[in-house]
Amino acid sequence: MPQTQTARLMDGAALARHVLDHTAAMSSAISHRTGKAPCLATVLVGEDPASATYVRMKRTRCETVGITSRHLPLPATTTTTELVDAITSLSEDPEVHGILLQHPVGGHIDERAAFEAIAPHKDVDGVTMRSFAAMSFGLPGFVSCTPGGILRLLDAYDVDLAGKRAVVVGRSAILGKPAGMLLLARDATVTYCHSRTRDLRSIIREADVLIAAAGRPHFIHGEDIKIGAVVVDAGYSPGNVGDVDFDTAKTRASLITPVPGGVGPMTIAMLLSQTAEAAALQMGLVPAELIPSQG
Amino acid sequence: MPQTQTARLMDGAALARHVLDHTAAMSSAISHRTGKAPCLATVLVGEDPASATYVRMKRTRCETVGITSRHLPLPATTTTTELVDAITSLSEDPEVHGILLQHPVGGHIDERAAFEAIAPHKDVDGVTMRSFAAMSFGLPGFVSCTPGGILRLLDAYDVDLAGKRAVVVGRSAILGKPAGMLLLARDATVTYCHSRTRDLRSIIREADVLIAAAGRPHFIHGEDIKIGAVVVDAGYSPGNVGDVDFDTAKTRASLITPVPGGVGPMTIAMLLSQTAEAAALQMGLVPAELIPSQG
Repeated sequence: MPQTQTARLMDGAALARHVLDHTAAMSSAISHRTGKAPCLATVLVGEDPASATYVRMKRTRCETVGITSRHLPLPATTTTTELVDAITSLSEDPEVHGILLQHPVGGHIDERAAFEAIAPHKDVDGVTMRSFAAMSFGLPGFVSCTPGGILRLLDAYDVDLAGKRAVVVGRSAILGKPAGMLLLARDATVTYCHSRTRDLRSIIREADVLIAAAGRPHFIHGEDIKIGAVVVDAGYSPGNVGDVDFDTAKTRASLITPVPGGVGPMTIAMLLSQTAEAAALQMGLVPAELIPSQG
Repeated sequence: MPQTQTARLMDGAALARHVLDHTAAMSSAISHRTGKAPCLATVLVGEDPASATYVRMKRTRCETVGITSRHLPLPATTTTTELVDAITSLSEDPEVHGILLQHPVGGHIDERAAFEAIAPHKDVDGVTMRSFAAMSFGLPGFVSCTPGGILRLLDAYDVDLAGKRAVVVGRSAILGKPAGMLLLARDATVTYCHSRTRDLRSIIREADVLIAAAGRPHFIHGEDIKIGAVVVDAGYSPGNVGDVDFDTAKTRASLITPVPGGVGPMTIAMLLSQTAEAAALQMGLVPAELIPSQG
């Protein structure tokens, strides 16, 4: 098979800018109407440098779109009860519209209990059980940011999902599982693969839409990609290395996300977009009516 | 291919009796320890004869295992608010340990809102968003009864799920979706198919474990079943007709559920088993310690 095709790039950085512009306009409209900016609370447990960097990035990005952030750094020794109490306070605080718990938290903490302390209407990171079920059942609610960002990307590039075979490699609670559920809600035929999957390569070859979300550097090669497939690389390994070997994959795919500049920028854009939306809803405003056109 | 194989039957009726015996023993132990029997509240809106029959069957079966039932019949004109209020009262009533809302409810009612009024610790039918997420994330909680019954059946026949290709045909919130999530939690590679799936037959042919849950009479024929596959027919059409054409399927499958006598009896057994378990937990008892061996 001659490898002449070169996939079109799905430019997550550009789409993220578009989403952030829209978010900035919404934040501005909210501030104008109410005198208050949307507010995202960020919770960081311990001093892991990577986590600290992520939180700082998110807070800096908040500023650029007119969202205030309130940072709550907690010591590494924080117990589950203390963390749940702290998050519950934020859930009850009318000045806070969205809550981000930077994860993973330390192994001694019950992360699920901490997530569940986030009120559903402030769950702008889409990590609660309720948000997962809402995504799964096609009900209103906030999406997990990375899967939600993936769907926005697919939509922006007019990928028709109905009836297509979608393969999701990875089954984490905040990425693989919700990504599959969102694709299923859009009428794709969805297969979940994971570390125990046998003959993974032959299943990947069946994918019209491939969502790589395993966090295994470059483990998917072009020869395993169906010609014309849409390839979304949501892998995340140190050094900005995705799950997909981009150079060989792009000779077979029709559309592909680069790493970096694909899914990554969409994740933070979704977080901020949902924070503005949460603020609007909590202040009794209708997000869609706040600005002329829905980005 | 000579059709000489005859599948072994997965006898849901026999396994359900076993589960019900275990449930009766647990109910008896609970009553003995506390002076109170487990109590299931059944809620029926309107007068659909089939729904009324199902509720009556469930209540009769409660009696046989020492579970009391409290029936709440509501008129067809009941509003969402009235139904939510009624279920909320049951959620708050310490005399009630489990709540079953017979569904479907009338089209004018927001069924999801009604389900969500069921307190998670009383959700013995496994219909709330929280229960769905718990199944999906492998967390403690009550399972949806039919998918939970399917897993019990597979376990009873020593079906090893890890790494197997499982195909779920159907994606309802109480059957197909949770069935797939339970299989995924057990390390199967899970594909969800549905009415929009293209080339369904070729996907079914890949299934090591097939869960038919579409409610389309006999639409899966033996020729589409992989030789040696495990076939679970959770279809439910009038006249006790399953999704699978049993006579042709049994010549290819290694294990197969009959209809009736397969999945059906397991559903009600799971409901009652979970009611007894809920009662034990709400009374501060440890279910596993109540009787010598866990069925």
